[in-house]
Amino acid sequence: MNRNRKLSELSELYRESVLIELREIISESPEHLRGVLLYHMGWQNEKGAPSREKTGKFLRSSLCLLSCRAVGGDPTRILPAAATLELIHNFSLIHDDIQDASPERHGRPTVWKIWGQSQAINAGDVMFALAILSSLRLRENGISDEAVLYSFRLLSETCLELCEGQFLDIEYENKMGASIDNYLEMIRKKTAALIAASVSLGAYLGGGDGAKVVHLAQFGEKLGMAYQIHDDILGIWGSQEEMGKSARGDIQQRKKTLPVLYGLENSKGGDRLKLESLYSQGNIDAGDVLTVMNILADAGAKDYAHNLAGEYYEQALQHLYASEIDDESLVSLKEIVCFLMDRNY
Amino acid sequence: MNRNRKLSELSELYRESVLIELREIISESPEHLRGVLLYHMGWQNEKGAPSREKTGKFLRSSLCLLSCRAVGGDPTRILPAAATLELIHNFSLIHDDIQDASPERHGRPTVWKIWGQSQAINAGDVMFALAILSSLRLRENGISDEAVLYSFRLLSETCLELCEGQFLDIEYENKMGASIDNYLEMIRKKTAALIAASVSLGAYLGGGDGAKVVHLAQFGEKLGMAYQIHDDILGIWGSQEEMGKSARGDIQQRKKTLPVLYGLENSKGGDRLKLESLYSQGNIDAGDVLTVMNILADAGAKDYAHNLAGEYYEQALQHLYASEIDDESLVSLKEIVCFLMDRNY
Repeated sequence: MNRNRKLSELSELYRESVLIELREIISESPEHLRGVLLYHMGWQNEKGAPSREKTGKFLRSSLCLLSCRAVGGDPTRILPAAATLELIHNFSLIHDDIQDASPERHGRPTVWKIWGQSQAINAGDVMFALAILSSLRLRENGISDEAVLYSFRLLSETCLELCEGQFLDIEYENKMGASIDNYLEMIRKKTAALIAASVSLGAYLGGGDGAKVVHLAQFGEKLGMAYQIHDDILGIWGSQEEMGKSARGDIQQRKKTLPVLYGLENSKGGDRLKLESLYSQGNIDAGDVLTVMNILADAGAKDYAHNLAGEYYEQALQHLYASEIDDESLVSLKEIVCFLMDRNY
Repeated sequence: MNRNRKLSELSELYRESVLIELREIISESPEHLRGVLLYHMGWQNEKGAPSREKTGKFLRSSLCLLSCRAVGGDPTRILPAAATLELIHNFSLIHDDIQDASPERHGRPTVWKIWGQSQAINAGDVMFALAILSSLRLRENGISDEAVLYSFRLLSETCLELCEGQFLDIEYENKMGASIDNYLEMIRKKTAALIAASVSLGAYLGGGDGAKVVHLAQFGEKLGMAYQIHDDILGIWGSQEEMGKSARGDIQQRKKTLPVLYGLENSKGGDRLKLESLYSQGNIDAGDVLTVMNILADAGAKDYAHNLAGEYYEQALQHLYASEIDDESLVSLKEIVCFLMDRNY
């Protein structure tokens, strides 16, 4: 099993509808930047010829629509909200890739790599503005003005968390001394907040009662935590196929993800000094990558991260059960959880 | 007269109210990024100590509030919209400074210069998200949900224009062959669109009738065009005091502003070849700056730009008169126009 495995059939169905919605809203973007956005989404190559690359999983929009259905709402009415979530996610990816100097995403050159940093900043900003326009389309589907305004509040507050998480991530890259608690707070903002917002927005717009919305939001947050920790494990021990980018890239970029922080806190003697020295210096070369992997394995960092992800996974499921949604919705949402977590490492 | 001259008394009054509104909304930003925003606004130094630097003119918020008053509305009710306009303007300035690699703004190091490009991208993104939250505060002042949603549409469409203008600006910097028409379209999007939106949003939220709103929006657009062309003239022939940054900086950065495009199209023989060669190469040194200034002056580029700005200025005033607002409002808005245009060059 790997990341290219399909989501559940229901999610696949939704995915097509979200694609149509996204294409419509992106067609409203400025002509000069549209090609950049279509490239980023995998629907065009860099010269403007149509293509259909495997890019995102549409995780956030799927969660939003499934969650809407789970509380008895009609997912087709809230497609613009699902599209908004993907636009916000992709705005942050485009800016992320500049900030991390990542040359590739899903095996293709990143936007800044082709169009330069300045135009990539613009492309991300356009995605953000389109996210607002997309949410306004909810009105055409009969969603009340009050609910649309609620979604603006939820999404803008989530964006603030996202930016703060990103800020902390960059801060921690540049200095030693971040703790595991710091790290967990950072990923809660950087990754889990938008996933939680996706689930809770779907439940809210679907007309879910307060208790259901709260449990589903908690489900999303815990799922987001588990998901990010898994991603960090794969960033060190995953295969290239699973990551869609260079395996072990996180080590070469000296990313201080959970296993590394655990290793820095728990490795002993010479191992610890070696690890500290490697993560303080400018570059980690290919030979050092193996050294880091061995030190982390010896310190039990992989097991630790695996267990912590498992704990969040269990908490996510507990909230899902507590939300008392119907069985069919439960199965669909659990399928997404399994899809995200059931990867080899 | 220079840029530090005061706006009209009324604008100064409004400015204080907008400042309070902005401080409140920025206090809702994530703790870790708040210091960066407060620095950018001139209210803190880079170490976090309070300061009160002369930074922006608050042009957009002043226009919005004066325009609201001009149609008989109550400006104090729409302060959150005025703050939103400043937040959008400042989000774009923070990203602009990265894109232009500008080391200074208002005589102080730019955000990216202190915190690095990555954190400056985040700071701009946070400003954008705060702009949404700020607009939501209109509801607390009794502005209808429908009007708040209208302002989201207007502002997000304006942001798309702003990003497109920025895209074109960067494109034209990097290649020869942009025409004067290309340039005018670029500044209409990059500068005039947000100024037009400021005036029209104020008039709309103030309850102005359709014809008034349209004339006032046109007033804003023409004013924005005149303003940007003036800025371009000052970027070449202005004093350091007027610009708050290195005089002649636009030449050294090889910015192809209106006078340069006119010079490229209208200089003759050796002058033209010299100009083309300087604007195709990597750097323009201090000696070449004077050469460029002389060639442009000989080609009549300064007069041409001055006259074109004058034409837009006249058109702006015609729309202002046609809007048939009361005399007192007319005087206040004309004071802003004079403030912007009545500079030495």
